[in-house]
Parts: sequence; C-alpha cells; structure tokens
Amino acid sequence: MKIGFVGLGAMGLPMAINFVNTGHAVSGFDFNAHAMKLLADAGGTMASSAAGAAKGADFLILMVVNGDQADDVLFGAGRAVDALPSGACVIASCTQPPAQATALGEKLAQHQLTLVDAPVSGGVKGSQTGTLTIMASCPAHVFDKAKPVLDVVGKNVFHVGEAHGAGSTAKLINQLLCGVHIAAAAEALQLAEAAGVDPQSVFDIVSVSAASSWMLNDRGPRMLEDAPEVRSAVDIFVKDLGIVLDHGRNARHGLPLSAVAHQMFLAASGAGFGTADDSQVIRAYRSLNKKPE
Amino acid sequence: MKIGFVGLGAMGLPMAINFVNTGHAVSGFDFNAHAMKLLADAGGTMASSAAGAAKGADFLILMVVNGDQADDVLFGAGRAVDALPSGACVIASCTQPPAQATALGEKLAQHQLTLVDAPVSGGVKGSQTGTLTIMASCPAHVFDKAKPVLDVVGKNVFHVGEAHGAGSTAKLINQLLCGVHIAAAAEALQLAEAAGVDPQSVFDIVSVSAASSWMLNDRGPRMLEDAPEVRSAVDIFVKDLGIVLDHGRNARHGLPLSAVAHQMFLAASGAGFGTADDSQVIRAYRSLNKKPE
Repeated sequence: MKIGFVGLGAMGLPMAINFVNTGHAVSGFDFNAHAMKLLADAGGTMASSAAGAAKGADFLILMVVNGDQADDVLFGAGRAVDALPSGACVIASCTQPPAQATALGEKLAQHQLTLVDAPVSGGVKGSQTGTLTIMASCPAHVFDKAKPVLDVVGKNVFHVGEAHGAGSTAKLINQLLCGVHIAAAAEALQLAEAAGVDPQSVFDIVSVSAASSWMLNDRGPRMLEDAPEVRSAVDIFVKDLGIVLDHGRNARHGLPLSAVAHQMFLAASGAGFGTADDSQVIRAYRSLNKKPE
Repeated sequence: MKIGFVGLGAMGLPMAINFVNTGHAVSGFDFNAHAMKLLADAGGTMASSAAGAAKGADFLILMVVNGDQADDVLFGAGRAVDALPSGACVIASCTQPPAQATALGEKLAQHQLTLVDAPVSGGVKGSQTGTLTIMASCPAHVFDKAKPVLDVVGKNVFHVGEAHGAGSTAKLINQLLCGVHIAAAAEALQLAEAAGVDPQSVFDIVSVSAASSWMLNDRGPRMLEDAPEVRSAVDIFVKDLGIVLDHGRNARHGLPLSAVAHQMFLAASGAGFGTADDSQVIRAYRSLNKKPE
C-alpha cells in the first residue's frame, strides 16, 4: 500500500514507522524537520508538503492536533485534497468534534474520496507498540478496505457505526470518562489528606476494590508526588473536556459531572499548573479545601 | 476463639458461617429467626439476644446496618457491652461516619474493651468466599490481635491507621469513588444514546481503554437493560453518598463531584427507581436530557 502520513508527532511518528516496518511505502510530512529525518532513517520518504505526502496515496492518514488542522491540510493553501487519486481514503485520527468529522466526510465525498473518522486512544506507548484502540466510523465497505491498514497500528479496532461522527463521539465519551475519573481520584485522595488519613493507605485499598478505575490506578501515585514527571498535561484535559462540553452545549445536552470536572482542570491550569502532569488537578482540590493556618 | 456475631444479613450470615467452618465457636444473634436457624444448621449457636451472643466472647463482630444500630446493640436496652469480658474486642464492620466510629471507640475504652473500626467492601460474594476487603483502624497491638480473625473473612486486610475513624474514612472514600464512577458511566452511556451512537459499541470500547472503571465494567451492561436484576439498589448510594456528603458538610469540606453524583441518585430514587438496580441512575440522565417528541 502507498500510505501518505501527515503529522509526525509523539504518536504520529511511531505510527508511521510501524507502516514502514510492515512493508508499506510511506511518504510523510511534518513541519518538524527532525521528525521527517527520523522517518527517512526508518525507511520512509520525506515529502516536501502535505500535498506531496498525499500524491498517489491509497490512504492518507492525518495524525494532526485537531480537526481544524485536518481541514487545513486538505482544503487550505496546500490543498492535499487535489493530490489524492480519485477513490483514495482519508483516515482522520485526530481528536475532533463529531460535527466536524461529519462535515469533513461530506467535503471529501464531493472529491470522490472516502473518510474513516478514526480517533485513537492508547497514547505514545500504544503508538509505538501498534496496540492503539481505534474508534472508526464510515460505511461498511470503506471499513472493510481500511481495516488491514488500521490493524497495523491498532490492537482493538472498532467499527462504531456507518455515519461519520460516531467514531469521534466514542472518542469524546472516552475522554469524558477519563477526565471525570482523574478528577474523582483527586477528590478522593485529597479528602483522605484533609481527614488526616494516610492517602497512600487509602490508595492501596481503593486501587484494588470496586472503587478502582484505570485512571485512579495510573494517576493516583503521581497525585501523591510533589512534582511528578509530566506524562500528559492538565491543559490536555482542559481541551478535551472542553470538546466534550462544547458538544453538549451545541446539542443542548446536560453533562453535570463533566462540567464539574472541567472546572477543576480549569482551576488547576489557572493556578499555574496547565503544563504540569494532569494528576496535579489534585492541587485545585487542595486550594478549594485549604483551611486557615 | 469464641466469636459473638450480631447481624446475620446477606453479608453477615456467610461471614459467621466462615468462622464456624474455620473451627471457631460462633454464637450469633439476629432478629431474623430464619438466619439464626441457618447459622445453627452450619454448626453455630443461636443466642437469644445480642447480649447472649456477646457473653464470654473474645471478639464481638457487628455486621449491622449502620453505626446507630451498632451503638444500640452495645449500649441500648440489651446492653451487650455488659456481657463482654474485660479486654474483649469489638469489630465494627458496619458502614458508619468516621466521627461515630471514633465516639464508639471512646465509649468502649471506658469499659476496658477495644474496638477495631473495620468496615468492609466486596459485597455478598466476598462474604461468601471470605475475600472481603477490610479497612481496619485501631492501635497496632489491637490490630495484631485481631488480624487472624479478620483474615478468616478478608483477603485484603488493611491497617489504615491507629486512630478509630480512619477505617471508616477509607470506606467513605471507597463509596465516594464507587458512586461517582457509576454516575459517570451513566453520563457517558446516555450521551451515546442521545448522540445516536450504539451505546453497546461505545461500552465495548471504553471498557477496555483508559476510560474504564470497575463500576463502568460491572454496571455498564445493566445500564443498557430495561429492568436488570437488582444487585445493589439506587437507594444504597442515596445513603452512602449521603454519608460522604454529611462528612463533608460537618468538616466544611467541598466535594463537588460527589455532590453532583448524589443529585443524580436522588433524582433516580425520586422518579420511583430507589429499589431498582443502581445502574438505573442512567434513567435520571435520560429524564434530564429528554427531548420533545
């Protein structure tokens, strides 16, 4: 297969290299020259533009920051859309609002191009090991064609629905749960601190009980550190829960827990911890419940 | 060991029987004559009152509904406290506010009796199989003495702290997380329903991703049923999150996610689903986000 790949970031580069390593011809583009070099070292081709990466591709994979960037790659000044052969398939793996994924599919259809709305979860580690969770939506015949390509980078590849936007909705719901669970873990552990009960002991209990969550077990230990390594920043959840709540606002759909969790991430970011590890949302709880000296 | 056991309910009876089966002399009491009979059939002794069960016991285990009942068993009309030999140990395994556990320890100390504040989690199944999680607090020398007794019914027996109330605080934090996680799962799956995305597909994704929680994975499938089997009722979380929020109110400690989750359980109960399975908190979300016909 001829694969165009735009967006060679922390997740995109290892994904692109996985395509090279499984025998595909990969033409990649990113504004970061160093990432391009690493792709070329691995056996891929450096394109001089997004359109260059798209030229003649069977599949164009977009692993850019958001839906605006995906739209810009295809329909902005560079117009990668014109470089794609008729019948080619765009796989949009960025996180974007469902309505934006739907609109993208409609625009591509006007150019005889198909879209897989295919956001991913699993982080840098999942990208490196080809074990991402992929939430794909597109007509069944498009999914059947794209499945072998998605399987190169994904371990759990789900066909969420035929309509574009379903994949992005699943991703949005995924982020809703992740964000609420991190904030809930912070609310719980900070209550232990305030009650004078060893939060490590409480963590040891709740992490093996019905109270456990993936996020509690992953973030909990870093909540109890003063300045933990940044694995994923507070501002990522300011953004992702923002997408969740924008969707709810547009749909006139109430999401009370998500809204409260977002407030705690916002407050942590406003207190100067936006680039800190997202476990540090616990600092917003400490401020909220600070007692007089 | 001579074990007195008061409260032979769905969890208490199998716990008491586990003591019989491990060679302890168990004298049990409950107002439910059938439960008493089942204990006797298993090889235990039926006492005619709580004081009768306490008489001569090395350990008196209280598996009653709440702290008020525990207090009543010991200091109410029956005064089981007077039947316990000096130096005996009371193991209070009911869920109660931390302050009540602290007060109970102080009252028992006046009678030369020790207390293990030892709430449990793990449900009926954990009681039957002797695999409960036990969150014990008491002075270290009391814990050392009680540990072999707790090991009979618990798989994960934690010594949370020396001060009474720490165990009940851990249990309260456990319930905080359980309640918030159930409500979060409902918020997530109802959003899928409203967005026209198959909630089963979304569940299949989030239950294997970083979005997963023990409660999501356990309650999620029952949220998608119309009238699921009642494993644990909505009103249990009306009560348990109520204890969490009463603690916060008394301590002047803000718990924003817990407060919101409690509202959803309250609304579900108020809509007539208090005795339904707690997964049915999703009905409160469906009502909240009901669109015109």
